[in-house]
Amino acid sequence: MKKNNKHVVIIGGGFGGLTAAKAFEDANAEVTLIDRSNHHLFQPLLYQVATAGLSPADIAAPIRAILRSQANTEVLMAEVDGINVQDRLVLMKDRQVSYDYLVIATGATHSYFGRDEWRRFAPGLKSIVDATTIRRNILLAFENAEMEPDQEKKKAWLTFVMVGAGPTGVEMAGSIAELSHKALKSDFRHIEPAQTRIILVEAGPRILAGFPEDLATKARKKLETFGVEILTGARVEHIDESGVAFSNSKIPARTVIWCAGVAASPAGKWLQAEVDRAGRVKVRPDLSVPGHPEIFVIGDTACCVQDEKPLPGVAPVAMQQGRYAASIIKRKIDGETEVEPFRYRNHGNLATVGRSFAIVDLGRIKTSGFIAWMAWIIVHIYYLIGFRNRILVMVEWGWAYLTFQRGARLITIDEQDKNGDKILKNM
Amino acid sequence: MKKNNKHVVIIGGGFGGLTAAKAFEDANAEVTLIDRSNHHLFQPLLYQVATAGLSPADIAAPIRAILRSQANTEVLMAEVDGINVQDRLVLMKDRQVSYDYLVIATGATHSYFGRDEWRRFAPGLKSIVDATTIRRNILLAFENAEMEPDQEKKKAWLTFVMVGAGPTGVEMAGSIAELSHKALKSDFRHIEPAQTRIILVEAGPRILAGFPEDLATKARKKLETFGVEILTGARVEHIDESGVAFSNSKIPARTVIWCAGVAASPAGKWLQAEVDRAGRVKVRPDLSVPGHPEIFVIGDTACCVQDEKPLPGVAPVAMQQGRYAASIIKRKIDGETEVEPFRYRNHGNLATVGRSFAIVDLGRIKTSGFIAWMAWIIVHIYYLIGFRNRILVMVEWGWAYLTFQRGARLITIDEQDKNGDKILKNM
Repeated sequence: MKKNNKHVVIIGGGFGGLTAAKAFEDANAEVTLIDRSNHHLFQPLLYQVATAGLSPADIAAPIRAILRSQANTEVLMAEVDGINVQDRLVLMKDRQVSYDYLVIATGATHSYFGRDEWRRFAPGLKSIVDATTIRRNILLAFENAEMEPDQEKKKAWLTFVMVGAGPTGVEMAGSIAELSHKALKSDFRHIEPAQTRIILVEAGPRILAGFPEDLATKARKKLETFGVEILTGARVEHIDESGVAFSNSKIPARTVIWCAGVAASPAGKWLQAEVDRAGRVKVRPDLSVPGHPEIFVIGDTACCVQDEKPLPGVAPVAMQQGRYAASIIKRKIDGETEVEPFRYRNHGNLATVGRSFAIVDLGRIKTSGFIAWMAWIIVHIYYLIGFRNRILVMVEWGWAYLTFQRGARLITIDEQDKNGDKILKNM
Repeated sequence: MKKNNKHVVIIGGGFGGLTAAKAFEDANAEVTLIDRSNHHLFQPLLYQVATAGLSPADIAAPIRAILRSQANTEVLMAEVDGINVQDRLVLMKDRQVSYDYLVIATGATHSYFGRDEWRRFAPGLKSIVDATTIRRNILLAFENAEMEPDQEKKKAWLTFVMVGAGPTGVEMAGSIAELSHKALKSDFRHIEPAQTRIILVEAGPRILAGFPEDLATKARKKLETFGVEILTGARVEHIDESGVAFSNSKIPARTVIWCAGVAASPAGKWLQAEVDRAGRVKVRPDLSVPGHPEIFVIGDTACCVQDEKPLPGVAPVAMQQGRYAASIIKRKIDGETEVEPFRYRNHGNLATVGRSFAIVDLGRIKTSGFIAWMAWIIVHIYYLIGFRNRILVMVEWGWAYLTFQRGARLITIDEQDKNGDKILKNM
């Protein structure tokens, strides 16, 4: 490490943090990227791990390996507990790291809107552990249904509820429909997997609120042809192991998946900065924190207002912000003071609904169907990090497309714990 | 299910049980296969999951999917607690299944020779959870070494001890050597992964006791060129989190992997049958249990003596026994009484030592090196169940061979538990 070089610390190895780190290649700076996990996760495909289509390693790459040849960069696998903004220190359990510039890209987590007790019964989908937990729940539901003699109880095992009809809820619903109607079709003797009820619950007036209404309507119709039931304007009042309750009705269901609220990581608290309702730090037009021109907050952790609306928590925003923050820091290191504000360029939105059907919103051009689905595949394969993962995912998808089968249908049960209960583990 | 057909229950979906089940295709019998997990596991490649080369789903296939088209067969995911031999019932927690014929193929588990407290510090390698636990331990050891300022402690993090130098110990040692010297080579800034010490500990006089001495010597030399240290005649006296102790020396090591003793599953207790020292049921020449011509015990659960030696606990023995037991049961159902005893036909033994090197013992022909390694690859790919897995494994191996990289280097950490400790989970 050159002694006089400025030290840039990046917290988080998601789309924002990793893009920022890569932008410092060959820069006059020493970079430390800190993440609590050892891998960068390709979150847009996480629902495929949750529905047994892909293996965890297919959509995750070690951060160290990605940044291996970037000699000015080191990677620390550690959990950040706080930030000392006065002394410019990032605080971890048993160490601290000083910084000249700090990029916070710690992402978001689930929000249960104050009902954290629902988490147990309705896990969300943010990490690989989340995905393998949901995969296990779904696969075990079919196993339990197979062995359940009581018809009502069997129905509850075969009912899957997605709470929240954004892209994740829609993708999960389509993918569970395909899994149950196709992949598991002939595997059971005492249930018809086609009996499965898949219910997409949305508090708002329609699904896919981030997409234009005509595309959302097409997605809705497609989901209905897959047998997915859609309940809009339905506000969940209660969730427990027996199912989901609304103000005047109840759905008995043993598998509920939380695809609704997200909340930013605790970066706002660390910085004692002003946050929005979702806990995101309100940043200045150059993504820095008011009063701290050396600290930048990007991605899902930031509330960045553009054209009077906060930018959505999607990968392209995080990546553009990461690249921008790195360029600003490099220019500041070089002594420049004038910077133009960050501006997000929306190249388009994509969502897939199931086999052979997606919707694409490119602003002027809107399309849906098979062509949109091919576009979705190409974009996702292209952005998947690591040559190997791309080939593996293509093999898995090709195989799945031709055979309707899912490759990663694994349930693992560990030994019994001290109370004699089975401990379920994930893969 | 035809009412008058005999009911065959098979416990265990490993090599023995699954081969037996498949042999009943088109037979005049109803078959129930019971396994506590939902997948058949290709155990010979488990060490590759433990060393981040393959994903769990690459070597595991859902038992239901394998037996999908066998209409007379159903699969039950449940854990067997015992057997009522008088009433011919297999007992599970909340159900029981009656049988006319029973095949027990429940496999083996680790034996710590009465020192079960070692399990925590030296996990063994039998299930996918075992493999992902070991993978996590190995990958975390490098992460911890990277952050450890104390040189002695760093060394302990970089020391890996395999206890037991059978095929599993040898494969693990070779694979960890390759991982540390090649795949992780440029990934760290504060350690040289080549500093890794890999130690293969064996209580007996030489490694690979099941192979001819000349082949074992070649394997030993190859391991030494990989930098693996081999300690023979070394009896472990104690294992804890600081390392492995012998009668008059100690190896400080944070990662210890148990590749030594195996013990049969509790089938002997269920049956109250005579067992050998390893807990295996002593079977008659037709693999039935003395006094119970309707119960067969096969694979690692059976002690089957041939030419005055018990047969080894390897997949080919289990598969041949599964096929044999099924044929005997079918003939008994058809009213035949005369049966010839089981006889194992040994087609050869294979073990791989690392990249491009294996040993093959075909009886008259013995060979080692690259040709043997190609033979090892072909045999393992051939026997991998499921068309998809074969292609994926070939892609992963081809990629690993060309690039020296490992694809499944994942560590996952779940949220904190009530005590504030991190809970580590597997993938």
